[in-house]
Amino acid sequence: MMSYQLGYVDDRFEPAHSKAGKRFRPLLCLIATEAVGGKAERALRTAASIELLHNFSLIHDDIEDHDPSRRHRATVWKVWGESQAINTGDGMLALAGRLILDSSPDASVTLDISRHFQQMCLTLTEGQYLDMSFEGRDNVRSAEYMDMIERKTGALIAFSLWSGAYLGGAGEETRDALRVFGLELGKAFQIQDDIMGMWGSKEMTGKEAATDLYNRKKTLPLLAALERAGPEEIESLQKFFRCASDDAGAVFSILDATAARSLCEARRTAHLKSAMEALGRTAIDGGAREELEALAHELTGQ
Amino acid sequence: MMSYQLGYVDDRFEPAHSKAGKRFRPLLCLIATEAVGGKAERALRTAASIELLHNFSLIHDDIEDHDPSRRHRATVWKVWGESQAINTGDGMLALAGRLILDSSPDASVTLDISRHFQQMCLTLTEGQYLDMSFEGRDNVRSAEYMDMIERKTGALIAFSLWSGAYLGGAGEETRDALRVFGLELGKAFQIQDDIMGMWGSKEMTGKEAATDLYNRKKTLPLLAALERAGPEEIESLQKFFRCASDDAGAVFSILDATAARSLCEARRTAHLKSAMEALGRTAIDGGAREELEALAHELTGQ
Repeated sequence: MMSYQLGYVDDRFEPAHSKAGKRFRPLLCLIATEAVGGKAERALRTAASIELLHNFSLIHDDIEDHDPSRRHRATVWKVWGESQAINTGDGMLALAGRLILDSSPDASVTLDISRHFQQMCLTLTEGQYLDMSFEGRDNVRSAEYMDMIERKTGALIAFSLWSGAYLGGAGEETRDALRVFGLELGKAFQIQDDIMGMWGSKEMTGKEAATDLYNRKKTLPLLAALERAGPEEIESLQKFFRCASDDAGAVFSILDATAARSLCEARRTAHLKSAMEALGRTAIDGGAREELEALAHELTGQ
Repeated sequence: MMSYQLGYVDDRFEPAHSKAGKRFRPLLCLIATEAVGGKAERALRTAASIELLHNFSLIHDDIEDHDPSRRHRATVWKVWGESQAINTGDGMLALAGRLILDSSPDASVTLDISRHFQQMCLTLTEGQYLDMSFEGRDNVRSAEYMDMIERKTGALIAFSLWSGAYLGGAGEETRDALRVFGLELGKAFQIQDDIMGMWGSKEMTGKEAATDLYNRKKTLPLLAALERAGPEEIESLQKFFRCASDDAGAVFSILDATAARSLCEARRTAHLKSAMEALGRTAIDGGAREELEALAHELTGQ
């Protein structure tokens, strides 16, 4: 079932070559190792742990959100049921936790990386808790939302860069700058994902247009609109998100009237700028720097 | 929600002093530390990790088995829903994985214990996978069942003793003997639990009589009966376990006719004997030995 999630087998355990996602988190880890002058091979186990951890979180998220499909295939719970899927995710988390303990031949480096890894896992679950708790509330502020995505999306991307730099031999300042680069990039990436979930076409996202809207997900565009809207507009938005209305057109009108999209775009750009500033505080230059910048732009649609 | 699971708060997060289970796993860890001449304080973090891990597995097991109550209270998923409960269990697993990384001031000891811990977590999920997969099968052999409980129940108890001895300063031979003591004790404990689940009264178990039977759980008594029964009896047992019959009396008659209970008791006693033999291979004597023996007898109803 883990192999299925990773795209290596189909639902009858026959070999397959399914899409396994972008895998940009382990990639960022390996690039960070090279960017600070280390060999990427040194960080391979850590990079693999990161991708396993990410996939653990996807298996459980899909159950929690009742998502029937991912990467054009049925989700693990949809194929084998919720109970087996919960357990498969647990096994994958344990596997990631085992593998991270082989991060480095140096015991103290391995311990330090492993402690940050487990702390980050805990942070992920805090983010997931907040995300789910927002579903039952209609007064979520955009600041709370940013705190949530920092934990749910930012922490793992920050860890990817931080640990890669660590294994490449970077000092504390460089590691910390790359951690901030990852955290800010993670936030910009999530906001871009939110923008696409509201305004992206099927050609751009591979999903139906306005998926987030029809799933009544309270993403940043909506929260931004709520903060700028008048009483009647708020009433109208809340009606839609309580499923008491199906008038998506009305929602889009309010998003337009409150300039929610340009607010989201400005925030995304600001976080991307912060990420680049953090990168600028390091001595990383040349090809490695270009690679990190290109990946950051790609991930944020810039 | 973690505090609720541990009995510290009620479902409105008000302080409570609810039953938190027997906590014999961390107790075995601390006793092992003392039994080999170490101070129990040295193993406190490891013992706490063990209890957190056990409670993570309970939170997820309760979802997977749809159990509405545990320790005379509603289960976490029953109070906060399945999605939050999955995530709470994940957080607890991460917390246990974080805490185990502070096992010892010696980095190499901490790494060794942490690696065994994560490997054991993976083994737990293998046991849970097998347990759930047995539900859909009517040809489970008792040998497969023993393999399942070794992973699901034995591995954690084995780890508790092994890690306690390690932190107390025991050499490899003593650690390994205590690991085997735990593994065999775990199997004897689970078989006793199965016997009580079939024939225990409410006064003895705190649960309704024959809970396992009415829940159609394929525990050792049933598998033992199936292996000894004739074709008509097998037909009758399978009918009950496929919920095509409610005749519990017929099941008990077959359990009697095949002497399933005495077979289970003999197995339990044999595993307890193996546990005691393993204990005998150590130099542990005096009060510590008596304490381990008494706990082993208590856990197996002997």
